[in-house]
Amino acid sequence: MSNTFGQIFTLTSFGESHGKALGGVVDGMPAGIDIDLDFIQQELARRRPGQSKLTTSRKETDQVEILSGVFDGKSTGAPIGFVVSNTNQHSKDYDNMRNLFRPSHADFTYFNKYGIRDHRGGGRSSARITVARCVGGALAKLALRQLGVEIKAYTSQVGPIRLEKDYRQYDLGQTEATPVRCPDPEKAREMEALIKEVKDAGDTIGGVITGVIKGCPIGLGQPEFGKLHAQLGAAMLGINAAKGFEYGEGFGGGDARGSEQNDPFVCKGDASGHRAITTASNHSGGIQGGISNGQDIYFRVAFKPVATILMPQNTVDKDGKEVAFKAQGRHDPCVLPRAVPIVEAMAAMVILDNILLNKATKL
Amino acid sequence: MSNTFGQIFTLTSFGESHGKALGGVVDGMPAGIDIDLDFIQQELARRRPGQSKLTTSRKETDQVEILSGVFDGKSTGAPIGFVVSNTNQHSKDYDNMRNLFRPSHADFTYFNKYGIRDHRGGGRSSARITVARCVGGALAKLALRQLGVEIKAYTSQVGPIRLEKDYRQYDLGQTEATPVRCPDPEKAREMEALIKEVKDAGDTIGGVITGVIKGCPIGLGQPEFGKLHAQLGAAMLGINAAKGFEYGEGFGGGDARGSEQNDPFVCKGDASGHRAITTASNHSGGIQGGISNGQDIYFRVAFKPVATILMPQNTVDKDGKEVAFKAQGRHDPCVLPRAVPIVEAMAAMVILDNILLNKATKL
Amino acid sequence: MSNTFGQIFTLTSFGESHGKALGGVVDGMPAGIDIDLDFIQQELARRRPGQSKLTTSRKETDQVEILSGVFDGKSTGAPIGFVVSNTNQHSKDYDNMRNLFRPSHADFTYFNKYGIRDHRGGGRSSARITVARCVGGALAKLALRQLGVEIKAYTSQVGPIRLEKDYRQYDLGQTEATPVRCPDPEKAREMEALIKEVKDAGDTIGGVITGVIKGCPIGLGQPEFGKLHAQLGAAMLGINAAKGFEYGEGFGGGDARGSEQNDPFVCKGDASGHRAITTASNHSGGIQGGISNGQDIYFRVAFKPVATILMPQNTVDKDGKEVAFKAQGRHDPCVLPRAVPIVEAMAAMVILDNILLNKATKL
Amino acid sequence: MSNTFGQIFTLTSFGESHGKALGGVVDGMPAGIDIDLDFIQQELARRRPGQSKLTTSRKETDQVEILSGVFDGKSTGAPIGFVVSNTNQHSKDYDNMRNLFRPSHADFTYFNKYGIRDHRGGGRSSARITVARCVGGALAKLALRQLGVEIKAYTSQVGPIRLEKDYRQYDLGQTEATPVRCPDPEKAREMEALIKEVKDAGDTIGGVITGVIKGCPIGLGQPEFGKLHAQLGAAMLGINAAKGFEYGEGFGGGDARGSEQNDPFVCKGDASGHRAITTASNHSGGIQGGISNGQDIYFRVAFKPVATILMPQNTVDKDGKEVAFKAQGRHDPCVLPRAVPIVEAMAAMVILDNILLNKATKL
Repeated sequence: MSNTFGQIFTLTSFGESHGKALGGVVDGMPAGIDIDLDFIQQELARRRPGQSKLTTSRKETDQVEILSGVFDGKSTGAPIGFVVSNTNQHSKDYDNMRNLFRPSHADFTYFNKYGIRDHRGGGRSSARITVARCVGGALAKLALRQLGVEIKAYTSQVGPIRLEKDYRQYDLGQTEATPVRCPDPEKAREMEALIKEVKDAGDTIGGVITGVIKGCPIGLGQPEFGKLHAQLGAAMLGINAAKGFEYGEGFGGGDARGSEQNDPFVCKGDASGHRAITTASNHSGGIQGGISNGQDIYFRVAFKPVATILMPQNTVDKDGKEVAFKAQGRHDPCVLPRAVPIVEAMAAMVILDNILLNKATKL
Repeated sequence: MSNTFGQIFTLTSFGESHGKALGGVVDGMPAGIDIDLDFIQQELARRRPGQSKLTTSRKETDQVEILSGVFDGKSTGAPIGFVVSNTNQHSKDYDNMRNLFRPSHADFTYFNKYGIRDHRGGGRSSARITVARCVGGALAKLALRQLGVEIKAYTSQVGPIRLEKDYRQYDLGQTEATPVRCPDPEKAREMEALIKEVKDAGDTIGGVITGVIKGCPIGLGQPEFGKLHAQLGAAMLGINAAKGFEYGEGFGGGDARGSEQNDPFVCKGDASGHRAITTASNHSGGIQGGISNGQDIYFRVAFKPVATILMPQNTVDKDGKEVAFKAQGRHDPCVLPRAVPIVEAMAAMVILDNILLNKATKL
Repeated sequence: MSNTFGQIFTLTSFGESHGKALGGVVDGMPAGIDIDLDFIQQELARRRPGQSKLTTSRKETDQVEILSGVFDGKSTGAPIGFVVSNTNQHSKDYDNMRNLFRPSHADFTYFNKYGIRDHRGGGRSSARITVARCVGGALAKLALRQLGVEIKAYTSQVGPIRLEKDYRQYDLGQTEATPVRCPDPEKAREMEALIKEVKDAGDTIGGVITGVIKGCPIGLGQPEFGKLHAQLGAAMLGINAAKGFEYGEGFGGGDARGSEQNDPFVCKGDASGHRAITTASNHSGGIQGGISNGQDIYFRVAFKPVATILMPQNTVDKDGKEVAFKAQGRHDPCVLPRAVPIVEAMAAMVILDNILLNKATKL
Repeated sequence: MSNTFGQIFTLTSFGESHGKALGGVVDGMPAGIDIDLDFIQQELARRRPGQSKLTTSRKETDQVEILSGVFDGKSTGAPIGFVVSNTNQHSKDYDNMRNLFRPSHADFTYFNKYGIRDHRGGGRSSARITVARCVGGALAKLALRQLGVEIKAYTSQVGPIRLEKDYRQYDLGQTEATPVRCPDPEKAREMEALIKEVKDAGDTIGGVITGVIKGCPIGLGQPEFGKLHAQLGAAMLGINAAKGFEYGEGFGGGDARGSEQNDPFVCKGDASGHRAITTASNHSGGIQGGISNGQDIYFRVAFKPVATILMPQNTVDKDGKEVAFKAQGRHDPCVLPRAVPIVEAMAAMVILDNILLNKATKL
């Protein structure tokens, strides 16, 4: 079941980088939701290779076909099966890697675990399999849209270039305007330049993506082992190349004292005059005791530099013999721009799943 | 099921801070393991309050009673039920908090989610409930001991005081020698002094715990949504006050390039002359593609300052009325020293669970 | 996780026949339900040994102690831990069985699966462990009570003596009036006499229990692999000594034709004049396509004769050596009377779990 | 997750009767198994409509396409996605049923649960969706084949015509020789004649399928809530039109006494002289205490007459208005012959899943 994500709203995913097709099954989609196919396709396009000079030049059209679970344009409560065909795979580019283990890829661990591996494009360990996550996330967003929950992610660091300001200081609607998906136009240009430089050197670079969830209902998440941030953390860490997750003040909060970081409760009126309890500050990151408190949820995800570099490398083959090799083909110098929609997709699935799960706590 | 952790080796936990007892059920413990009760009790003693001047002065004896699943000193494969009675609870200390929401605690979110809350000592959201995790972890360690897997954690940062060196530079056997559980004696003294200063000020402080897993078999973890680091991350983030998780180079890896961070494979002979494939470096942190590669797994967990400070604070009550209050009772100024055994316990459960799960991948 | 039952409302059970205590953890109990301890104790008393001459003469008082999850008399949403101590175990009665495999017991299979077994009273395979199911079922009934769902079971067959009439022909309120728990007083006397005769012969006898669920909301159960009757079937088949399950017309329906068994829909007014769609007949047993239709759910569970007979029997020991033995101690000649509350308990847990699960299907 | 079956070896299924395609994802298939596509296609052909005069005349070719998880003809451990296109759907046949609830179908319950339904051919509640079960079962059989586990099912009753003899008295290799899938040629002819008679009358008929598992390893199944027969029962009861399940002596065992039904253990040598403990008789049906004992597992599944009859029927529409209607189209007069491979498929998945799960009980 390692290929199934979620508890009530679930995505079961399949497919390899160079197989016939990728796809999945979304189960637990509430019935009666308008299934906007254009929106789903558009979300897929955001992770599509070849969308800018910053990403791989592979030309995958990535057309999704919905096979079930939709009738008269609406979800029926039945599982939604979908398929995205692989059409532009250059499997020959990987012929020289059939028997060797690429450094910092999953080649060695997969081969040890399963005794067999599909070496073409990384097989099941390829980032290409996030296609299914994208579709699952788009479906979740369609449901969340009805509840006013909004999920935005953006690139907040590439190599040493980082946004110093808080997410509240940016217009997140500007994120898509830059190829690097950063809402600060100036920093975006710097990041872009750096990625190009790295690419020209045949190298790769990592960074950080920030995610923000607005309009999240109070009460999501479950005590002890189902804390909302633990679920979000697992979701984000499961994205290819992710190395870290923090929410609220995160690692930076280690320096401050309790008296500085506590968020006092206050009772405030909103625009319509309705008074409600909320917090005066939000160091907690919208989650307290593992349960959402109605404030913005914000978090950061660290990504390592992509393991595939276009430089000669040394490694060993299956028999332990030393070999030198150089990767061929079309690769991303930086995973961040294309990972932004995946971060959103995972967050959307976690939030929708918990909204549904939360309903099951009441008689 | 939010109170159940794991897939094959599972811990189901119950209990509140001031209820009759805490306890749990461990299911999936392999049969035939020697159940060393002294060891379990000793692990519990490591998280016990009142063990040093750095921790709360509460005197909880925390005696564990095993009720089932053990016969003739060995596990039988049946579920292991256990109970730890609450004996030293001062519920009156919480009388003034019955109707108010303490800042940055779970009072508000629990009340909203359930419509009722046990206000005494934080009820189910109290860190006291990690008692069950400790017992579960001790049982997991007893099984792992047979396989030579070793799990160590230590305090690597308190406030601004941090260990600059790598875990390999320390003798982790020295961790328990200092009350703050830090293997660097000098830094430990500094941390201790800082915690005392913070305590005297009625304030609290956060920090970072580092965890290391040695001797982990190759092949643990599952592709896509069951990656080993995602499971470890969820386990650690679920610990009370945890705000972040990173493994391998983590957030710091964002600055480096792929050519610097890739871990080349090599074939090396061990002491007994047996040659095996391994990596020359370990930036990956012992996990590649979500699956353990046999190298040390190392990770860091960020903890916020404890929310209970012994200073006057402002907040609101259930009716939204502003109130000032001051916490009474006996509290930890810094959660780190007592969280070290919990980090180990969670890691032990994750690793044992994945060892068992991995067996189920082969016919 | 084989010792956890349910998806949202879950029971995790522990304990052996002759261990220190039995108990469990109920997770997912909705918050705010009045926890009537007398009722729970009363439900336990219904399965208690020694309650009549038809059952074993063991005197187990079976006092349940609730350890968590209840505050001010109400459930809080936190897991409910509970313990029932073992007080009257005669472990010596089993000394001669330490190394042999009793026919049609779990001795042989447990020993093969785990390599070790607690031979005292059957260990984990004993019917005594249904104590935890009883407590879980009582908690579920407390929640269902608020929704008007009523669950009744009764003995409908003992050996060749069977009730020929339909459950609708009996006053199920009379079930508890007879020691055999059969609502037909005359048949109950016959059953009673048969059980006594069988008991005097040192033998045992099986039979059938009928279960009825009234007031079940429409819409419970899930398509494909979570059909309501499949969940009920698994729950009932998991009861010790159960050998079969059928619902609606069951095995008897094989003889009839579709034109005879179809249940036509009609629109009827109820007492208050409210018109609603229902079925004119109920051959389906209240479930269609795996989902409850609002009609009574009725089903039957077959039980084998208890394997422990007080006669000399031949078997082999661990080494395969033939041995003759005779069981000692206090045993039930017929499991049916004491299994009636267990059937109800399991049904109550399934229904409550599905009511909660069903809430999670809507946004 | 109601559309996912199993714990380690899982099938997640999707598709409706008249949607674009049916399919699913098999996760947890052990790596390195030869994937014999012809065998999978052949298993699908056994459930195909139109294979004889006894079944519906619909001509569905049901070609399965494997999309992932197979490399160089072998399973890789990655999830196996598959699709079977719908090609011969006559959706117009259902136009008159769009707003009415067919008696004893899932129309009413689905509509109530989801507020929307795909009325064409029963949508997700159609027996057509067992296509995915067939593929999952075929994959499981390919793995079981390597272990010598053999699974056979056959029609043992149609209406009042039933096989009186035990499964051991028949050559189960003859089952496929008759269109009704009954290994007794004479009874098969009678059943065939009856089905034709029923079909000519526009009516339908039910019956019983017997399943037998030979060569099952000792130790499968888990105590308390994961008993092997409870898992088998849930699997069988989840098949469309199933109404009952029994194993071993089942409901018939109610009449016998313990002294007659107990299975004494003996130590016997096999053909090769290897001595092993087994039972002298097998009233238990190969499962004791919920765990397989190495003997044949045998069970029976009751099926109701198909709800779709070609006669005028009365029912109501969504608004509760009475309507008369007559089903059109091509339907099975008796589900038994085509359900035989489904019974085998479900049994195969349960057994493989438990073989894998059992491996996870040992360190």
